[in-house]
Amino acid sequence: MRSNTIDRTAAPGPLLAPVGNAIGIAGHAQLSPAELATGPVELAVILAAGEGNRLARHGNGSPKPIVSLLGLSLGERTILSCLEAGIQRFLVVLGHEKEEVRAHFERIAAQRGCEIRFVESSNWRLGNGASGLAAAEAAGERLFLLCMVDHLPRPELIRAVRSAAINEGEIGLGIDRDRDQLFDPEDATKVTIEHGKVTHIGKQLDEWDAADTGVFLCTRALFSDLAAAASRGRHGLSDAVATLAKRGAVRAIDVTGLGWLDVDTPKAWDEARRRLLSGLSGKGEDGFVSRFINRPISTRISAWLSSTSITPNQITGAGFLLALVGAALLAMGEAALTIAGGLVVHAASILDGCDGEIARLKHRATRRGAWLDTILDRYADVAVAAAITFAHARSQGDPLVWLGGMVALAGFILASYTTKEYVIRHGYPYPNDILNRLKRRDLRLIVICVAAVAGHPYAGLLAVGLLSHACVFGILVRGWKIDPRGAR
Amino acid sequence: MRSNTIDRTAAPGPLLAPVGNAIGIAGHAQLSPAELATGPVELAVILAAGEGNRLARHGNGSPKPIVSLLGLSLGERTILSCLEAGIQRFLVVLGHEKEEVRAHFERIAAQRGCEIRFVESSNWRLGNGASGLAAAEAAGERLFLLCMVDHLPRPELIRAVRSAAINEGEIGLGIDRDRDQLFDPEDATKVTIEHGKVTHIGKQLDEWDAADTGVFLCTRALFSDLAAAASRGRHGLSDAVATLAKRGAVRAIDVTGLGWLDVDTPKAWDEARRRLLSGLSGKGEDGFVSRFINRPISTRISAWLSSTSITPNQITGAGFLLALVGAALLAMGEAALTIAGGLVVHAASILDGCDGEIARLKHRATRRGAWLDTILDRYADVAVAAAITFAHARSQGDPLVWLGGMVALAGFILASYTTKEYVIRHGYPYPNDILNRLKRRDLRLIVICVAAVAGHPYAGLLAVGLLSHACVFGILVRGWKIDPRGAR
Repeated sequence: MRSNTIDRTAAPGPLLAPVGNAIGIAGHAQLSPAELATGPVELAVILAAGEGNRLARHGNGSPKPIVSLLGLSLGERTILSCLEAGIQRFLVVLGHEKEEVRAHFERIAAQRGCEIRFVESSNWRLGNGASGLAAAEAAGERLFLLCMVDHLPRPELIRAVRSAAINEGEIGLGIDRDRDQLFDPEDATKVTIEHGKVTHIGKQLDEWDAADTGVFLCTRALFSDLAAAASRGRHGLSDAVATLAKRGAVRAIDVTGLGWLDVDTPKAWDEARRRLLSGLSGKGEDGFVSRFINRPISTRISAWLSSTSITPNQITGAGFLLALVGAALLAMGEAALTIAGGLVVHAASILDGCDGEIARLKHRATRRGAWLDTILDRYADVAVAAAITFAHARSQGDPLVWLGGMVALAGFILASYTTKEYVIRHGYPYPNDILNRLKRRDLRLIVICVAAVAGHPYAGLLAVGLLSHACVFGILVRGWKIDPRGAR
Repeated sequence: MRSNTIDRTAAPGPLLAPVGNAIGIAGHAQLSPAELATGPVELAVILAAGEGNRLARHGNGSPKPIVSLLGLSLGERTILSCLEAGIQRFLVVLGHEKEEVRAHFERIAAQRGCEIRFVESSNWRLGNGASGLAAAEAAGERLFLLCMVDHLPRPELIRAVRSAAINEGEIGLGIDRDRDQLFDPEDATKVTIEHGKVTHIGKQLDEWDAADTGVFLCTRALFSDLAAAASRGRHGLSDAVATLAKRGAVRAIDVTGLGWLDVDTPKAWDEARRRLLSGLSGKGEDGFVSRFINRPISTRISAWLSSTSITPNQITGAGFLLALVGAALLAMGEAALTIAGGLVVHAASILDGCDGEIARLKHRATRRGAWLDTILDRYADVAVAAAITFAHARSQGDPLVWLGGMVALAGFILASYTTKEYVIRHGYPYPNDILNRLKRRDLRLIVICVAAVAGHPYAGLLAVGLLSHACVFGILVRGWKIDPRGAR
């Protein structure tokens, strides 16, 4: 039962305006003057005390936070998402296998250059509320994030919760309203929501509006309610959230679709792996060949490479060398070698996707990596075009063969050049229209591969060369038509 | 004599803080509480009533505001500078040959899509103060710019005066302290300045601190003082400014070096022409060849072209066609034609500077023009490289000739590509270092020209091709070294 009457006509005050994905409804503000809990949120408390025994198959006996998922542990993934969202400091609550888990996080702190402190929960077996309560003293801050170590929140989700607005005495909970995408609804913690506030929380709700993502924005009110719940013998985090919810102090922060998964069971583990890999494709940016042929292969390679210490830049270098090997084979002009060369060139094209995939998978994307990749791709194209032309000219002797190869090569480089120039002139990327997809490297190289296997690499070269020039012309016209004015 | 005592220790109030290039000194504020004259300045009053009979030689009898200087009239240049500085509306004071001048400005308004109103001064022969006074009623605004039609202020200067801060009851005067650059000091109106205020103004000052640039930021106080001066039989603008200065109401707005010239005499006319042309070079951006060989020629061509109706994009097209003609001549392989081809290619390189020059001279620079120019330049390079290689291969028969040509061509395009990619990755342009200057088109084409004239165009092609690749490598390394982190 609500304890106060509501004036629904009241204009929303500043503290009730939605911030980020937070939902605030004027009518349901506490009538007593509520003070906005402000200040940059820089601390995340991470609950990493549980046993996670349902994940035994993957862990080989290792505690859950340190089990590696595609090259990074669950703990590391949580820390990296927070770091990307602007969180600088961490407090990790230890319990099960505390020495091993602490050592793992200490290594992360050293590698990523962030501050990670630790607190040990002696009662962690009682429930995750007990673990949370253990952080009460060390947390210190008036406002902090609280994350489960095994919920794999994406940086966008953390960012949304971090930038939400809550009042003093409240907490905010990241909630996901997408029932269809919710993995394992039976096992999930669910909530009911009324007017932007969480009203009930639990695993066994008959009716529910959204799932609990395991990412909270907290004031220190959380600790009072954890303590109160503990004194009643209830040691679940949900128990404290339930009492907070009862007095209208849990704001629902809508993070639907921003990405998270509670990795609690072997099935969830496989799903997490699948989601991480399927998130690697360039989506709207990929060309046709990339999307339907190269990505399905490259993501499998990346999944395997992620468990090694091979870096994205090493893969860039390997892909470049592979393209040079393909070019050398094509230059021979011998039938079998030409087929091999075509296949190797396409293998290089597939590997060209792996550097970016590994970089994203392991949070190691760098500007210099992208820089190197782009320039080496152009040089690989030069080698392939020159090799095919060389081989064909040797068997034909017609100087027009060379001229054709030269023009095709120019088309390859200019196809990439034109869209770069477009970005610079207009300040935004060239749209991913049909021209943009047809001029991409993935298509060029597979056409060359197929043509080489069919015994006509030079014909393939000319075809994609002409296609490239046609795309350049189309892009030139499109760039000409827009923005007739504007500074030169 | 000053009418009030001064507290030099007083802290500057907010209205006295310098804004833009304005200078405000706390000690000399009016002691009565002064109100800042605020509001966006959107109106420029342009005095275009005078006879300008000292310019007879250039005008062929036309009134001064409509005399064309490198393709645009003095009036049009003043309007365009104001437009670029954000001024939207104009009030032109007419006098001498008012019908002809009005028709000219009406054409400008229609062409440039701005609002130009007119007011006629019946007393314009008495002095420019009388012209100014004629604007009193029509001006309407509390704050406006006042410009002489013949002072050729650059947009930067207008912008500085426009964004300066003055108090109600004051005016601001753009002043230039650079005595060395002042053209015709005897004829110039000069001022003395004390603590950021103009204290004396006139052509015959024995001692002076700066020159009057003819650009004013005015409150309506100007009109009262013009009227007061007129009632004393003084009809110069300087007469009103002098009385304003006497009571400390003329702020000096320092616009030293921002560019202006009082075009009053045939000598000043020639100087204006010289300054406009010398301002066309890309300065820091030009390569060696551009700067010392191409620009001196291209600016002369541009000066001539400016009087025609040829557009920058037509010149871009002509330069492209000229390069294709040069390539065709080089492709023949015959000694005399090779020399001709080399020279034509370099002529195209020179003409390549003219499109941008005309665009700047006539305020017609467009984004689409720059876009077209960049892409066509690359295609012209393709044609030249292919032509030279074709001719050489025909006389040699060695397939390595073609390979060399192909690699050289790739170098040409990638040299430009690499710095574009740099901008996109890092968000700022690649610095104009030695690598950047060595990889430019101006150098490539003059080397090819010289080599062609010497009978060895292919050797020249290979040389600049290798140079281009070396520069690409250097730029790649430089881009790799900085910013090791940052989003991919």
